[in-house]
Amino acid sequence: MKWPFTKMHGAGNDFVVLDGVSNRIELTTEIARAIAHRQFGVGCDQILLVDTPTHPEADFRYRIFNSDGSEVEHCGNGARCFVKFVHEKGLSRRNPLRAEIATGLLTLQMQDDGEVRVEMGQTRFDVQSLPFDTSYLPTQTHGQDTLYGLTLTPAASPQQTVWLSVLSISNPHAVQVVEDVSNAPVAAIGPLIESHPRFARRVNAGFMQVLDRHHIRLRVYERGAGETLACGTGACAAVASGIRQGLLDSPVRVDTRGGRLTIEWNGNQLQMTGPATTVFEGTLDIKHLLSSQPVFE
Amino acid sequence: MKWPFTKMHGAGNDFVVLDGVSNRIELTTEIARAIAHRQFGVGCDQILLVDTPTHPEADFRYRIFNSDGSEVEHCGNGARCFVKFVHEKGLSRRNPLRAEIATGLLTLQMQDDGEVRVEMGQTRFDVQSLPFDTSYLPTQTHGQDTLYGLTLTPAASPQQTVWLSVLSISNPHAVQVVEDVSNAPVAAIGPLIESHPRFARRVNAGFMQVLDRHHIRLRVYERGAGETLACGTGACAAVASGIRQGLLDSPVRVDTRGGRLTIEWNGNQLQMTGPATTVFEGTLDIKHLLSSQPVFE
Repeated sequence: MKWPFTKMHGAGNDFVVLDGVSNRIELTTEIARAIAHRQFGVGCDQILLVDTPTHPEADFRYRIFNSDGSEVEHCGNGARCFVKFVHEKGLSRRNPLRAEIATGLLTLQMQDDGEVRVEMGQTRFDVQSLPFDTSYLPTQTHGQDTLYGLTLTPAASPQQTVWLSVLSISNPHAVQVVEDVSNAPVAAIGPLIESHPRFARRVNAGFMQVLDRHHIRLRVYERGAGETLACGTGACAAVASGIRQGLLDSPVRVDTRGGRLTIEWNGNQLQMTGPATTVFEGTLDIKHLLSSQPVFE
Repeated sequence: MKWPFTKMHGAGNDFVVLDGVSNRIELTTEIARAIAHRQFGVGCDQILLVDTPTHPEADFRYRIFNSDGSEVEHCGNGARCFVKFVHEKGLSRRNPLRAEIATGLLTLQMQDDGEVRVEMGQTRFDVQSLPFDTSYLPTQTHGQDTLYGLTLTPAASPQQTVWLSVLSISNPHAVQVVEDVSNAPVAAIGPLIESHPRFARRVNAGFMQVLDRHHIRLRVYERGAGETLACGTGACAAVASGIRQGLLDSPVRVDTRGGRLTIEWNGNQLQMTGPATTVFEGTLDIKHLLSSQPVFE
């Protein structure tokens, strides 16, 4: 069983893309894990599977698998790579494309400059949607937004209070404004926020530096993954929070370490525009791939 | 500029292998870093470059580059992949092969079972060779070996003394015997040993569980890299130390998380036998590859 694959990244979020339209691909949990393994496999954050749609208005169906083999609904950085892959492989010439995901249809627009514009869903600022337990927490009002003061005790540092804007898109976010994002204590306090008991389903912790009203720098400590090169929903969350706080105006360019994204927000719906890059192509022998496994845990 | 490459691993230590005999490969520091990058490039621990030899008795010259672009002299896991690559690509049918490295010639033997046997150099037990400052440290004698008691203070744990066997091969090692390697505190105390001020050039910290006189399990916190799936010189160090302590007899099978190695030691010279696995093949566009860079540090 030999599967051709393409390795891509979207702002540093990296993917193995498989063409399930032209090839017969049966992606089990075991195979997904093996492909994603950085030493034993190709190595990636997620696997994108382009498949034939079940929805009559969709051009394609796209499915996303985490490195542990679990399936997720949507990933903005992955959606851009998906569009670029479909166009490069000649699987469709249509633009915009309509992609079927587990929750419905997504519109994906390839721009003349090669960047891709993706619908990212709606913002929700009710704390129950994360959920986030705010009882007895101090608050501050910044513009239209409420910030919550969370007291943290990082290892080898004094206790400190961070002021967080909290919102959910498809996943929960807690964003803070910092003066210098390069020197922000992401490694020290990111994990304390991410797994704070007040966030029952944990949270993505964003650190945003405002450069001007249309330009920020961002680092995100991602839920279950640690700091990543770019987090698409994290960029959306930071921009929506910054606009609500009166610090930013749409559209906003978001510099992450892995690449530059542009976020538009109309007070409800989010759009993300950004790059998709093909790194290399290869062929995998699946039976051979599965022969490499850890000797002990 | 397009370069074909092969992704391989030796017991979970992973490599991008380039054929500089058949292709014109000019591997700059910048290109090496870009290839090794896990998101922007192919991703690997090290890059192996197979090149034409300058030494008249060598079949090939092999060079090894770290992910930061620096060149290293020898890597046992890499040497096995090198042999497998040369045979698979038909670059040479000779067996054993003679490989030129920076410090001389290495003999590399492909076995009938597909595993490769590699010379790993000599052991040195003088503490100056690491170097290791032993002044005023408590000692214990185990067989022919001296263990040194180092007091460590892990975060959130009481102070503890670990008993270390210290030796160098091509690099410095501090090995301790543990009861259960799966639950050994590698993450908690590995970094404290690795960067302890008594090891002026730092040290690789090994944790060995003795299963019987010819079989151990091993985890290594590697100098500058953290815990890895397998460390070839770490396996050699653990076996030599275990034999000197009277716990093991040569040959010894070493189970690492990434694969199984067999180490022979005659009291001076080390030999390592182990697997080499081809994961996939691909082609890189170098100019395109260099276009992905971090946006900020």
